[in-house]
Amino acid sequence: MNAHTADTPRVDPALAAGNTTTCAGYAARHFGWRVEDRVGVVTLDRPERKNPLTFDSYAELRDLFGRLKYAQDVKAVVLTGAGGNFCSGGDVHEIIGPLIRLEAPELLMFTRMTGDLVKTMRACPQPIVAAVDGVCAGAGAILAMASDLRLGTARSKTAFLFNRVGLAGCDMGACAILPRLIGHGRASELLYTGRSMNGEEGERWGFFNRLCEPDRLLGEALALAGEIARGPTFANGITKTMLHQEWNMGIDQAIEAEAQAQAICMMTEDFSRAYHAFVEKRRPVFEGN
Amino acid sequence: MNAHTADTPRVDPALAAGNTTTCAGYAARHFGWRVEDRVGVVTLDRPERKNPLTFDSYAELRDLFGRLKYAQDVKAVVLTGAGGNFCSGGDVHEIIGPLIRLEAPELLMFTRMTGDLVKTMRACPQPIVAAVDGVCAGAGAILAMASDLRLGTARSKTAFLFNRVGLAGCDMGACAILPRLIGHGRASELLYTGRSMNGEEGERWGFFNRLCEPDRLLGEALALAGEIARGPTFANGITKTMLHQEWNMGIDQAIEAEAQAQAICMMTEDFSRAYHAFVEKRRPVFEGN
Amino acid sequence: MNAHTADTPRVDPALAAGNTTTCAGYAARHFGWRVEDRVGVVTLDRPERKNPLTFDSYAELRDLFGRLKYAQDVKAVVLTGAGGNFCSGGDVHEIIGPLIRLEAPELLMFTRMTGDLVKTMRACPQPIVAAVDGVCAGAGAILAMASDLRLGTARSKTAFLFNRVGLAGCDMGACAILPRLIGHGRASELLYTGRSMNGEEGERWGFFNRLCEPDRLLGEALALAGEIARGPTFANGITKTMLHQEWNMGIDQAIEAEAQAQAICMMTEDFSRAYHAFVEKRRPVFEGN
Repeated sequence: MNAHTADTPRVDPALAAGNTTTCAGYAARHFGWRVEDRVGVVTLDRPERKNPLTFDSYAELRDLFGRLKYAQDVKAVVLTGAGGNFCSGGDVHEIIGPLIRLEAPELLMFTRMTGDLVKTMRACPQPIVAAVDGVCAGAGAILAMASDLRLGTARSKTAFLFNRVGLAGCDMGACAILPRLIGHGRASELLYTGRSMNGEEGERWGFFNRLCEPDRLLGEALALAGEIARGPTFANGITKTMLHQEWNMGIDQAIEAEAQAQAICMMTEDFSRAYHAFVEKRRPVFEGN
Repeated sequence: MNAHTADTPRVDPALAAGNTTTCAGYAARHFGWRVEDRVGVVTLDRPERKNPLTFDSYAELRDLFGRLKYAQDVKAVVLTGAGGNFCSGGDVHEIIGPLIRLEAPELLMFTRMTGDLVKTMRACPQPIVAAVDGVCAGAGAILAMASDLRLGTARSKTAFLFNRVGLAGCDMGACAILPRLIGHGRASELLYTGRSMNGEEGERWGFFNRLCEPDRLLGEALALAGEIARGPTFANGITKTMLHQEWNMGIDQAIEAEAQAQAICMMTEDFSRAYHAFVEKRRPVFEGN
Repeated sequence: MNAHTADTPRVDPALAAGNTTTCAGYAARHFGWRVEDRVGVVTLDRPERKNPLTFDSYAELRDLFGRLKYAQDVKAVVLTGAGGNFCSGGDVHEIIGPLIRLEAPELLMFTRMTGDLVKTMRACPQPIVAAVDGVCAGAGAILAMASDLRLGTARSKTAFLFNRVGLAGCDMGACAILPRLIGHGRASELLYTGRSMNGEEGERWGFFNRLCEPDRLLGEALALAGEIARGPTFANGITKTMLHQEWNMGIDQAIEAEAQAQAICMMTEDFSRAYHAFVEKRRPVFEGN
């Protein structure tokens, strides 16, 4: 990794992680999954019901994002839904029905499982781009919120509708994360009322990075993820780690943490590649090490 | 509270809190107070001086919000001012004059007393909707800021004017809370200069959830508070608690805290009521347990 | 400092700090520095290369802001660049070239040195107003971000372009501070892609307090800094301290910290001056004690 020793034969990087995983060939069972040019694409695909989540798809998403932590063959992820909607959240019949018959220990097992999905989304080094059209509700809104970047459409409807189903707004990290995306007052309104945020509000409030035409949404999300995947991906993973690490640090502590993290990145060949490309007036080609 | 045992005779819930308080019949002395359909309405009402605060009204507000923590008969609160203004802050003659003659220990007793008002506003389970028209200055701006939701008017003028009276912007939590509402840079400007934020800025920056016509402001605030009071009020109180608890948690800690809090809500009858109403294609009627 | 003892002869305040420093006469070597009416003006001034930073200018800026912590003759700072640009960041030839040949301990010494510049900017009591026109890139964008207030122009281009040079976005506190200024989602986009934020976006997102015409930018920044310097400067310094201190406190802790800090400010003569001026219907003249 150190530019000084670029002529030393490299050791198999898989050693460092105990082993590494591959994700390109992963055969998903409860949603669509494909990898194109090192961009993994998750497609929630039960369009006839607006792509609800089930116990199975929650768990498989958690496991896939956990697997991505040690994967070398995926450098960015796009998260989307089939048929003009993103995700309608936990399925009323397959999830909510069973939940009302569970006791406290089992309920906590469920809420921890769904929370673990957000934890693995935040812990994997790949930036996640959510492509949000149509319905984006409940746990679906959480999945968009837990992504790194969000592209929406004017017709998208994002609803943290937990209080409409008798629950609190504190689901899967929403009370911590949503206020940092759109401000504490706006987040409070969405969580206390469960009302939909429309696309225009989402862009104006900073939930969506931008709005796209529905038929161009996935293409633009893939282009953005592709651009990131062609960047200095080791450094991008450090950016993601530090946005997470520094969430509740003081400024002075954050500055020291960044000094250490950036010093590591300055040892990478990608940093050297960028310098040499600049001197030679050409675009750098990053390799993620 | 558990849906499984809904047929068991309920114990008087007042037992759990040592005792509970009632607020509907509370006779306020230093501001207006009434309860309509479980929505409490605080009206600052010295309109001839734009509703300033006094030592007495500070203390009584602190005590009323403290009492609301254990009250069962109020489920949301509206905070407003009489005569087209919200609140002009600490009265110059009745508060600032005496303050400049106090010694350090007494001054700290005063700043702690005012801070305790914000603490009780944040600690009670009822979401607070501020209805802000006209002048909203100094401690008045703090009361709006410390509410959960804020409706404003185009002509409202919100000024954190502490530095205009020779003080720091760090009053009653402003340096912590205001940046999370409107962003750190905009909050810094308001706190360093003491200038007014107009209504349009307030909406655009996320301080106000929306602007209303002055003559409809109170009605819309009551409607919003009423909607919340008809919701799953136990869960709403948990939302408020968790927005407070997670203020400076890391994301992973917040997710675990939410897993526990939401598991409690999944044991409530309101969650069960919502499910059954959905299955039967009718609106749920929540009861707050 | 206590208004009660205003007739007691004052002890030389320099004693309290061990000694105090003067900055008005400081002769800067690697950037322009002047003090007008107690407003210090830093001008990055290598306009032929858009005012890049070098090892020397980084260190001297760090030392100057460190010196300002104990200075009594400067009450606000304006930070700007010469020739229609703010700052192009770390010089490619003078900084990046040497960096790729350094080992880990030296790299950490560099990243800590640049981080220390942000630490001293946050620790000095003087509010810093950045006047940003044209190019504002890399470490230049950091300097703007680390200021207290920011005035921009429509043509300004602010780029946290670290990933374009193979590095992570976690530079000098960016992953902690930028999300609090413009929201976490927008900050993420800028840090993952390195793209420029234009002036209109900067204002809309809360990075810039307002946009100015390029030829009026410096004048408006000086006017804003001058207004602050004529205010209650001791209290303003406490505002800055508390915005820093409360960055990751809980609300209840922040309220207690503010109660203590504001009680100190209520002991100042400036607080008394403001009261008497109000009673006498004239503008207060603050003296910063």
